[in-house]
Amino acid sequence: MNQLKIKQGRLVDTIHHTAQWGASGVWGSHPTETGVRRLALGDEDKKVRDWLVEEARLLGCEVKVDAVGNIFAIYPGKDNLQPPTGMGSHLDTQPTGGRYDGIYGVLSGLEVLRTMKDNNYVPNYPVALVDWTNEEGARFPVNTIASAVWAGLQTKEYAYDLESIYDTDRVTFGGELSRIGYKGETDASHVTNPLAAHFEIHIEQGPILEEENKKIGIVTGVQGYSWNRVIIKGIACHAGTTPMKSRADALEMAAKMILKGIEIAEGHGGQATIGTMSVEPSSINVIPERVEFSFDARHHEDAILKQIVEEAEAAFTAIGAYGKNGSKPLPVEFTNTMTSHSVKFDTNNIRTVKQAALALFKAEDVKEIISGAGHDSCNTSRVIPTSMIFIPSKNGISHNPEEYSSPEDVENGFKVLLETIIRYDQQRKEQSI
Amino acid sequence: MNQLKIKQGRLVDTIHHTAQWGASGVWGSHPTETGVRRLALGDEDKKVRDWLVEEARLLGCEVKVDAVGNIFAIYPGKDNLQPPTGMGSHLDTQPTGGRYDGIYGVLSGLEVLRTMKDNNYVPNYPVALVDWTNEEGARFPVNTIASAVWAGLQTKEYAYDLESIYDTDRVTFGGELSRIGYKGETDASHVTNPLAAHFEIHIEQGPILEEENKKIGIVTGVQGYSWNRVIIKGIACHAGTTPMKSRADALEMAAKMILKGIEIAEGHGGQATIGTMSVEPSSINVIPERVEFSFDARHHEDAILKQIVEEAEAAFTAIGAYGKNGSKPLPVEFTNTMTSHSVKFDTNNIRTVKQAALALFKAEDVKEIISGAGHDSCNTSRVIPTSMIFIPSKNGISHNPEEYSSPEDVENGFKVLLETIIRYDQQRKEQSI
Repeated sequence: MNQLKIKQGRLVDTIHHTAQWGASGVWGSHPTETGVRRLALGDEDKKVRDWLVEEARLLGCEVKVDAVGNIFAIYPGKDNLQPPTGMGSHLDTQPTGGRYDGIYGVLSGLEVLRTMKDNNYVPNYPVALVDWTNEEGARFPVNTIASAVWAGLQTKEYAYDLESIYDTDRVTFGGELSRIGYKGETDASHVTNPLAAHFEIHIEQGPILEEENKKIGIVTGVQGYSWNRVIIKGIACHAGTTPMKSRADALEMAAKMILKGIEIAEGHGGQATIGTMSVEPSSINVIPERVEFSFDARHHEDAILKQIVEEAEAAFTAIGAYGKNGSKPLPVEFTNTMTSHSVKFDTNNIRTVKQAALALFKAEDVKEIISGAGHDSCNTSRVIPTSMIFIPSKNGISHNPEEYSSPEDVENGFKVLLETIIRYDQQRKEQSI
Repeated sequence: MNQLKIKQGRLVDTIHHTAQWGASGVWGSHPTETGVRRLALGDEDKKVRDWLVEEARLLGCEVKVDAVGNIFAIYPGKDNLQPPTGMGSHLDTQPTGGRYDGIYGVLSGLEVLRTMKDNNYVPNYPVALVDWTNEEGARFPVNTIASAVWAGLQTKEYAYDLESIYDTDRVTFGGELSRIGYKGETDASHVTNPLAAHFEIHIEQGPILEEENKKIGIVTGVQGYSWNRVIIKGIACHAGTTPMKSRADALEMAAKMILKGIEIAEGHGGQATIGTMSVEPSSINVIPERVEFSFDARHHEDAILKQIVEEAEAAFTAIGAYGKNGSKPLPVEFTNTMTSHSVKFDTNNIRTVKQAALALFKAEDVKEIISGAGHDSCNTSRVIPTSMIFIPSKNGISHNPEEYSSPEDVENGFKVLLETIIRYDQQRKEQSI
């Protein structure tokens, strides 16, 4: 284990300090009991970015801003010809965000650099703290877009043209980058501005670690998901004059599909969520003639995810085709609208995180976990070794002002990140990875 | 069977003739292939009323208009000291109405009077054709309000204050009655302006007669119904990060309730319809935290209807209380918003209709039926002997421009009404009823 002396409580204080830029959504009586509303590339985002750049420079970092506003704060090592080891996350939030989602990752990275500086510790290779732009996709509605551009998965022009959905005038990603002074001169490219690896610490945003009483999650991958739109066409008739056996009730069929879809996903160890539904004509005494709902299916294995979706489509179609009693079939449209493939993180990175966690905590406090949500690390993992660390989220709540992780959990996670970065740096030197 | 000569096709022609006042909703290429939009007490309603009054006077009727606009066209009999035998329905329509709902009943009544006149037939007692105001409740949102006032079930002042939901300014039932000249001087009262009985012929508005290949429905009563609002409170969480077992998914529980509610109603020989549903927060990847839906239950026996609703409430509450697996109960609110009690029509009236139908048709062409929808006859049946006659509705469609009954079915029903009125008039004379 590293011997660096850490400054107890500073990270938590920093988290609350930076919440001044966007504090919103009071949920308790203490001044820190609010969420944060800090939409990407808005005025509050500019303020926290300016602060971050200043803090990084005070630590002796070289700060690069790339063409899509990603900030790279590079803490020098002994051999600065090699690419830095990366630690990144994001400072933007959902409109009803909390104090931890993304923010915790960036500020933990800053705390790693501060701790190195406090201890006059010089790593073998540079260490870069990265703030990725617009991770949430809340203001410019494509999430993790800036890490995608950096990883070569999307063009910067595509990002520039994205329009804000929180402004009435046409406000673009590119325009806002220029306005707040974060359209940088560094290429947005993992080729010309490389990282050796990417580690991201994040709140779990789910209840698993808390429910199982774990302190640290070693994230081995990210679930894939499939979004689908289901439309059922029934026949609108009077609720009083139409016998049950003569009905083609689109909502009755939808209810069967919802339960079947959930059963199929659960049977494969996956997840299914029906988050939206509309019913027409929406009158108390008229049998629904059209129901549309979304079917969100998730699994960490792409092949099984595909199977869940295929089985659901077949089952829904069969439910519609049979209808109430075989007499009045209801046409069903099942359309895939989006698929996000699962991600498996780098084995070496995972091992390093695990070694770091087990150097600090007992085995029973640590759990391997699959991320249910997407992160910038999904993009970086396409081009460089990547993995993540999770800490518990109170009640699994996220994207909500009440999002909370205890100061102890916050500190625990930071220690694992610090230990990971130092170990990884040493392993690079020893060429053991 | 009566020996009156009827004029083939005149009733169907009259139906299409009067559709000029409100023709709307083209569904075919022939000029008669539209629906009718004739909102109560609007300009089109005034025109058809004026025409009806004129036609009735030409037949020698005394025309009375009561304080809520009900028109009584009284064809004289031999003994005009006794109250008239009534035949009534309505000329107003839904905004997307057809050519038959209500209209068929009034114009069949007119055709009865025209046929008596053609044949110089003088009944023993007067026969009144009634056009009841605002049956649909589409413009002034309380249906069958004017027959309710006549039957003493509601005050005329209550009716006068009803506000149009199709006008932006404040437009009242009372104001529109005056404006179109139909706030009459006759008391709106079954006591001072009585009828001896009420017969109403109507389209079925459901598929039963058509599906069973019947020509005439002898309506023995009207189903009761119960409207209820169900609210389920779940916990909104991220669709990716929340394991299935940790969920309190309000929509998953709603799906179970919908199927259970339908099962309970069907088990009792009743009906259940979930016609409206809203889901919050309505985001593809967020587990629903609140679902509200309507639960419309129907049965022709009030005691069984009550049982259906009680069992549904208990079942829904239990589904919520157990939740996914007993770990996260979901509170359920079940609120009754309206109950309409079932109606049993008068035994003698039903018998007269049945005799009339069997004098004209084979037993296998005739079916006793319960009305699924409400009618003015529900109100009249509270104070005078009442029953109804149904003819088939194509595909059971109603409240839709495509509402249709064949010329043959239209004529069949009229013949049964004519035979019924003549038989009833004779039975009154013979004091056999």
